[in-house]
Amino acid sequence: MARPKRPPGGDRLPTGEDATLERIGRRLEARQGPPPTGELWGGDDAAVVHPGRSDQRLVLTTDAMVAGVHADLSLVGPADFGWKALTTAVSDIAAMGGTPAQALVAVGAPPASALEELADGLGEAANAWACPVVGGDLSEADQLFVAVAVTGTLEGEGPAVLRSGARPGDALFVTGPLGASAAGLRVLTARRDGQRVAGSEDLERAHRRPEARLAEGRTARAAGARAMMDISDGLGLDLHRLARASAVGFVLDEVPVAEGATEAEALGGGEDYELLIAAPDDGRLEEAFASARLRPPLRIGTLTKDRREHRLGSVTLSATGYQHRV
Amino acid sequence: MARPKRPPGGDRLPTGEDATLERIGRRLEARQGPPPTGELWGGDDAAVVHPGRSDQRLVLTTDAMVAGVHADLSLVGPADFGWKALTTAVSDIAAMGGTPAQALVAVGAPPASALEELADGLGEAANAWACPVVGGDLSEADQLFVAVAVTGTLEGEGPAVLRSGARPGDALFVTGPLGASAAGLRVLTARRDGQRVAGSEDLERAHRRPEARLAEGRTARAAGARAMMDISDGLGLDLHRLARASAVGFVLDEVPVAEGATEAEALGGGEDYELLIAAPDDGRLEEAFASARLRPPLRIGTLTKDRREHRLGSVTLSATGYQHRV
Repeated sequence: MARPKRPPGGDRLPTGEDATLERIGRRLEARQGPPPTGELWGGDDAAVVHPGRSDQRLVLTTDAMVAGVHADLSLVGPADFGWKALTTAVSDIAAMGGTPAQALVAVGAPPASALEELADGLGEAANAWACPVVGGDLSEADQLFVAVAVTGTLEGEGPAVLRSGARPGDALFVTGPLGASAAGLRVLTARRDGQRVAGSEDLERAHRRPEARLAEGRTARAAGARAMMDISDGLGLDLHRLARASAVGFVLDEVPVAEGATEAEALGGGEDYELLIAAPDDGRLEEAFASARLRPPLRIGTLTKDRREHRLGSVTLSATGYQHRV
Repeated sequence: MARPKRPPGGDRLPTGEDATLERIGRRLEARQGPPPTGELWGGDDAAVVHPGRSDQRLVLTTDAMVAGVHADLSLVGPADFGWKALTTAVSDIAAMGGTPAQALVAVGAPPASALEELADGLGEAANAWACPVVGGDLSEADQLFVAVAVTGTLEGEGPAVLRSGARPGDALFVTGPLGASAAGLRVLTARRDGQRVAGSEDLERAHRRPEARLAEGRTARAAGARAMMDISDGLGLDLHRLARASAVGFVLDEVPVAEGATEAEALGGGEDYELLIAAPDDGRLEEAFASARLRPPLRIGTLTKDRREHRLGSVTLSATGYQHRV
């Protein structure tokens, strides 16, 4: 990753960014009050709200992408940067089982930034995910940033799929092999530095143009998935987050590694945006994916009763992944 | 203003930021297509959309605040910064005649930023405007920024009040005297630099804790206002924007200057967040404000047929105000 690496945080979450977010959440709640019944504020991939106290449910999320932190503009172009910024926010809607509706984009940019190319990437992603950019804001800033907020809806009657709904015995799945984005970053960096690297277009693309697993998220929700999140900061960290939110432990049988990636990249690289799914009925999930003609979900392990159990095979898996220094 | 000043842009809009936004809007539309009938994307204070193709209308807006650009952290504290970031976004909902519902906040911050204090200010504004922060994102960045997206609703059946609906002959109002924020910044700067300045608490407060004119916006919409916007970049620039969007000219009879401010601050200072309203029936607007026990709106002029007419009394008023260098 272009992002500075942190030492592994150990098994005790929350640390770093997560801890700061919890502190901030408490400060906010002291002033604005708790969420009303039926709404979810914070602590998951997206919020679930009822605007204007109506019956309609909306899923709301925001993500910011900062040049030099989330992406190295000497490796990915401004159009890729725009694509990634919108796609990572849409991915949070996918992780709730929702359907994106609209995006808002706030850009901070130094003078003479390539804003047209940035807009091209935003527009391509908006088109790909049927999530148009309906409004925006443009400011001067020393460092390019793109903050994307996305609204989404939930089809039918059931609840959104949260991180906190998993139970001991649930099967754990991911929607695809992991580590391709981190491996793509490694390849792009090597190329920039003059090394010759063969046959890696898929990896590069995984880093420059990640995909939001919208059909997979909707299908998992319809098939009774009990917990779900997108893997943005690495399976090694995000699985701890899901297990902590659900108060369960886990035993991973395997880590599916993307072709050309390493196991370390699959566990700690992040930015794959595959979905991590806990399902009580693994056959039902697999059948639903097959019916929807989706790539079969990969079963990677099981959730357990002992919330201190964090195993990959016979070894303990520490919470390893990307956290911001804030 | 703490913001670097631009030379006046002359009478031809769009320039600078406005021109860039129009270019970006065209690039986006080429990729994501035009808005469906009944939706408004871009070009106004907020977008009007129907999430999931439902009947419900939502008003959506985003605004970013960047330290050193929109506010000087040696003059306003982190709590003020948070307040201003949320309030300026809520003000865009007021300018459509809407009611805010939820906010999303993406923060980029250098390590060891005063994030708890920032959250306090966000929470106080969320409480003041009944617009809770329901989700967020936190990133490392070299320069503090806060990007706020807000959802809002529209009461009843009528449309939102756009910038583009004014007609020749409409009376022009503002919801309060102008220039207090810029004067407050002048006072705060003088104090920081060791000068003694007396009796200026109201001005300081106007700069540190601006208010969103929500009741005024709703009342103006209910009373048949034809065009409306919030004055964020100065009357001298924002009035040109409203006139251009409505294809009309204007004759200003007076510029209401806040006590302790100068006329230049009232025209070009910005950040007052009073509403600029075009109403076909001035008596009806004044009566509606009186019935709602709101401060009486101040009549400042009239819109005219000649779209090249931009007058303050007998002199031509150039488009003067804040534009980002992007």
